[in-house]
Amino acid sequence: MLKVSIVGASGYTGGELLRLLLDHPRLEVHQVTSRRYVGQYVYQVHPNLRKRTRLKFVTPDALEPVDVLFLALPHGEAQKHIARWADLATYIVDLSADFRLRDADFYARWYGQAHAAPEWLNRFVYGLPELHRAELRTARYISGVGCNATATNLALWPALRAGLIDTTRPVIAEIKVGSSEGGITPNPGSHHPERANVVRTYAAFGHRHTAEVMQELGLAHVHLTMTSVDMVRGAMATVHAWVRPGTTEKDLWRAYRAVTKENPFLRLVKERRGVYRVPDPKILAGSNYADLGFALDEETGHLVAMAAIDNLMKGAAGSALQSLNLALGWDETLGLEFPGLHPI
Amino acid sequence: MLKVSIVGASGYTGGELLRLLLDHPRLEVHQVTSRRYVGQYVYQVHPNLRKRTRLKFVTPDALEPVDVLFLALPHGEAQKHIARWADLATYIVDLSADFRLRDADFYARWYGQAHAAPEWLNRFVYGLPELHRAELRTARYISGVGCNATATNLALWPALRAGLIDTTRPVIAEIKVGSSEGGITPNPGSHHPERANVVRTYAAFGHRHTAEVMQELGLAHVHLTMTSVDMVRGAMATVHAWVRPGTTEKDLWRAYRAVTKENPFLRLVKERRGVYRVPDPKILAGSNYADLGFALDEETGHLVAMAAIDNLMKGAAGSALQSLNLALGWDETLGLEFPGLHPI
Amino acid sequence: MLKVSIVGASGYTGGELLRLLLDHPRLEVHQVTSRRYVGQYVYQVHPNLRKRTRLKFVTPDALEPVDVLFLALPHGEAQKHIARWADLATYIVDLSADFRLRDADFYARWYGQAHAAPEWLNRFVYGLPELHRAELRTARYISGVGCNATATNLALWPALRAGLIDTTRPVIAEIKVGSSEGGITPNPGSHHPERANVVRTYAAFGHRHTAEVMQELGLAHVHLTMTSVDMVRGAMATVHAWVRPGTTEKDLWRAYRAVTKENPFLRLVKERRGVYRVPDPKILAGSNYADLGFALDEETGHLVAMAAIDNLMKGAAGSALQSLNLALGWDETLGLEFPGLHPI
Amino acid sequence: MLKVSIVGASGYTGGELLRLLLDHPRLEVHQVTSRRYVGQYVYQVHPNLRKRTRLKFVTPDALEPVDVLFLALPHGEAQKHIARWADLATYIVDLSADFRLRDADFYARWYGQAHAAPEWLNRFVYGLPELHRAELRTARYISGVGCNATATNLALWPALRAGLIDTTRPVIAEIKVGSSEGGITPNPGSHHPERANVVRTYAAFGHRHTAEVMQELGLAHVHLTMTSVDMVRGAMATVHAWVRPGTTEKDLWRAYRAVTKENPFLRLVKERRGVYRVPDPKILAGSNYADLGFALDEETGHLVAMAAIDNLMKGAAGSALQSLNLALGWDETLGLEFPGLHPI
Repeated sequence: MLKVSIVGASGYTGGELLRLLLDHPRLEVHQVTSRRYVGQYVYQVHPNLRKRTRLKFVTPDALEPVDVLFLALPHGEAQKHIARWADLATYIVDLSADFRLRDADFYARWYGQAHAAPEWLNRFVYGLPELHRAELRTARYISGVGCNATATNLALWPALRAGLIDTTRPVIAEIKVGSSEGGITPNPGSHHPERANVVRTYAAFGHRHTAEVMQELGLAHVHLTMTSVDMVRGAMATVHAWVRPGTTEKDLWRAYRAVTKENPFLRLVKERRGVYRVPDPKILAGSNYADLGFALDEETGHLVAMAAIDNLMKGAAGSALQSLNLALGWDETLGLEFPGLHPI
Repeated sequence: MLKVSIVGASGYTGGELLRLLLDHPRLEVHQVTSRRYVGQYVYQVHPNLRKRTRLKFVTPDALEPVDVLFLALPHGEAQKHIARWADLATYIVDLSADFRLRDADFYARWYGQAHAAPEWLNRFVYGLPELHRAELRTARYISGVGCNATATNLALWPALRAGLIDTTRPVIAEIKVGSSEGGITPNPGSHHPERANVVRTYAAFGHRHTAEVMQELGLAHVHLTMTSVDMVRGAMATVHAWVRPGTTEKDLWRAYRAVTKENPFLRLVKERRGVYRVPDPKILAGSNYADLGFALDEETGHLVAMAAIDNLMKGAAGSALQSLNLALGWDETLGLEFPGLHPI
Repeated sequence: MLKVSIVGASGYTGGELLRLLLDHPRLEVHQVTSRRYVGQYVYQVHPNLRKRTRLKFVTPDALEPVDVLFLALPHGEAQKHIARWADLATYIVDLSADFRLRDADFYARWYGQAHAAPEWLNRFVYGLPELHRAELRTARYISGVGCNATATNLALWPALRAGLIDTTRPVIAEIKVGSSEGGITPNPGSHHPERANVVRTYAAFGHRHTAEVMQELGLAHVHLTMTSVDMVRGAMATVHAWVRPGTTEKDLWRAYRAVTKENPFLRLVKERRGVYRVPDPKILAGSNYADLGFALDEETGHLVAMAAIDNLMKGAAGSALQSLNLALGWDETLGLEFPGLHPI
Repeated sequence: MLKVSIVGASGYTGGELLRLLLDHPRLEVHQVTSRRYVGQYVYQVHPNLRKRTRLKFVTPDALEPVDVLFLALPHGEAQKHIARWADLATYIVDLSADFRLRDADFYARWYGQAHAAPEWLNRFVYGLPELHRAELRTARYISGVGCNATATNLALWPALRAGLIDTTRPVIAEIKVGSSEGGITPNPGSHHPERANVVRTYAAFGHRHTAEVMQELGLAHVHLTMTSVDMVRGAMATVHAWVRPGTTEKDLWRAYRAVTKENPFLRLVKERRGVYRVPDPKILAGSNYADLGFALDEETGHLVAMAAIDNLMKGAAGSALQSLNLALGWDETLGLEFPGLHPI
């Protein structure tokens, strides 16, 4: 058993990660930190873990050396002390946005301030195994992924890899998200009477995850439009793109089948009958699957590519653990077997 | 047109009242106050009123004399300055809990502190027309009602009035409520990811509305158990009581039919077929109806009496306006005609 | 009082219309038909109307002449007997899709079969007052509108009218809809355990309402992508288009302000603070408002135009009544004053 | 690996069981039957199992001998051919209501018809390990449990076992349930626009699960009142009872602590701070935990005992598998480790 600790374990991503690690067959949770909840049992914040662990939150100052350190801090925090964290562990997995972008200027443009540790940006591997499996196998520093970026990247990746997309035309990703994306800290808009029943396009442009899509897919013209809907977990990307002339539905079938076959957590959902004909985050809560789908208007070349994920799993803690499994030379599905529920 | 102002109009009850008053044929809104939102348009807080009014919130210090003053302040505030409010208007309708109880000691027991204006308690009439119609016709000072108390009171009243209830046995009111009951101020438990999907029995005993049920129904042994469910508006009381020996279902039919016939906003819902066989707050959003129902186990004498209301309407602003209509000598349904929606 | 009857009043649109008509100051409901529920009280199907009316459903064969006949039949039914309906009333308002398109070939292409009464297509006026107010004032035959088409049309209309849209580029309308759009008849996908919590892109292309957008906006390249979300009422269109070179945010402000000022049921929602900064169907249940918004990426010319409506109101019964009000020479807002609720 | 088959695997309980069995370390799914879906992949009905299994539904006539046969048929079906099923397997676990009651007359009274195989009633053990652990260790025939009965039984059991309940006084169980309890077959009331947002007391008396509570707890006077709320999974029992004179909160703490300590899937939830102070089915989806709580009004002796479960897990498939684990001499938690999610 390797020892792991989680810094910033009182948020939703940290809690989800903790749930996964407590059941992981080869990892053992050593310490979890939270400045706010020091001394409290973790199940007082994450009630699903009651009777699963007697761990208490400790202050980050009390951290001891471990094999793996997960950082689940607010954006901007991890980069400030990255050298200190790296001293504490052989492997670092940072779930924030701090080490997702490879270019310091690009980071500064999207995050509005200079990066505090630009020399570290290239030591990190972007923790999406479907795009970086080979690098992850030898990685020591792994960045997390943005949930909305991940839904978009996975939706489009099979078609892009097969060279079917006309990348000179703009790509529009319409992403519908649940309330857990906003994190555990309340705000006026997250008050239940105000947040329930919404269809709220809170960001038409400029969402920071756009940068991750540009970097990972190499797209210059991509727009993410974010809409909050009434669910807690889940992100659904409906991505509009244009295919290269002559591309057929058959070509796309081939491309999506190939990619979903190669990747244990990708599934192609494209049925002619039944209730579940398309990807839907409804059935993915707690699961690490990303369900992909597509529809092509052959006449116009308009492609609608879809991906549904659990934002806290494939969009955060799940991909992070999957990446770590690879870095440690293990089966990437280890500890990530929960398939999701139906109905729910 | 009589002039009305609302003190504390930025909360949910105040907003609902404002919606009603803006469409009332004989009342004209003069001023609305909010210390927090002074100078802002009311539609910035109550977005449903956009294009309906150009009113802005003013500070309570700027209040001018009017015919009717509605007080929608947090509990405990209205009593502190009741004499000042009374100087400003001929009619006062207080929606808080400050003037609902007639007895100062009883108030102190349930609210944990002495009343600041005990001499005013008997000048107010409890604003539930179904129980106090005659007094309301001559009232100048009207108290609002507790929403959970109202659901309980209305559920049981027909059977009690007909003398069918064994009042020596305890009455248990199980009340399921939406998130708007908690008011407009967020708290950790109202954060959408935590509040969505709950069935949370947050108060097994001791809810303050119990006092209003004891006072209004004259019951000594009554317990209110509160459970939050995933809706925004609505309160549903399922009240367990025991009938006097020999009471039949027919007796209850007679009792409930009589009361619902006499009262324009009470409806009896007890069907053998169709989807809507029992009261359900689902279809009452925005409506002033209270839907009543009952079921009797003749063998044991166990009665399940039910009442569904919109907590912000019949349980707050609606009953308040209905009471005022009576006090002003008007048809009590004036401005309260919206029937609710289906489906919703 | 003019006499009106509703044919097919047991569906959701028929029920909503009935609710409106029962409170209309100058219209009187004479008969409502439903083959399935003949002899039953309308409140057994539309429970919100309990205590509002003692009307019972009659068979369509029993219809008597009236001033206005509303047809709320399944698509394809009204056209079969349009001459008979027209004999019964001076004014016909058909809420189905039968008379929305002006061109019989275009109808056949989108609906997959020849129109049964093509000679009637040009007698009808498309019942969207914002686009056809002048014609509606002299209309006798009024067609209903498609809810998704209406959201799309209203979102884009202000920019189009001002000549700000590059119509040579494709327009993509991403529409999120509630379950009431599917009508009152259950299907496997509408079973609550399967339908709750979904984000289900059930139609990427080819939705029939596309035809109404093409016709009404004169757009050749427009795509409607439909996604079901977990709400009952409401449709939200997020429409992606490209503006003509040089178009500024200021131009769009001017265009949207002009149109929302001219039209009593259009509101511009574009705030920098508060919870409700953008259109949201959440607050529109029961209301005839369409809330519009927009965001422009000046660098790329990418416009995100938004419209939120209640699909059963502005998207169906509300626009129909508004159109009839115009045809009868009345204030178009008559009987449509309900502003919607907050919170809900 | 022991071989198991599931008869009637296309329903919600069958599907949940299948999910559990596919991940069970010592059981191997051999066949699953469904007359309706013969030849289809199970993931076409249970979409969460896509990429987990290539099993197809077979007709029950094709069943081959196995070690364990699970019966997940509609009520009344298993008893008709119980001898045939018993010929096919060493162990039978029947999830229907057919073999839950031990007395044929009692069965006939609650189910309205004579039992088809009364001689089998005493061969079955009621599959609730918390009450029947010893018998289950030697059982070959195990009955499932009613979900509402289970919530009620577990809520009250600790107090009853400790002799703290006054059993001469009536017990009232108020149970709030999700839509999955109604099964996979749609009905007019399960149509999403009608079922969403409900608080619908669909059964004030006479729910059949009452019989299981009477049998298992030995209570003569117990009433189950059922209310549907807007969730898919979950059952929450709030049970009102009276304690024996002199019983203190401390006595109840002792009783509940003892029982929750002895049973791996019972947890006591009674906190003074935090959001999760009481049991809530919200966090139990997919989990086999039953969360228990209580509140005592020492003055009146009124006890409110609470239990939250996932109706498809602890209330059905989970308890069934837990019971089988015991019968097979294994750790009862095997294959039931999923803790549930937060937030959700």
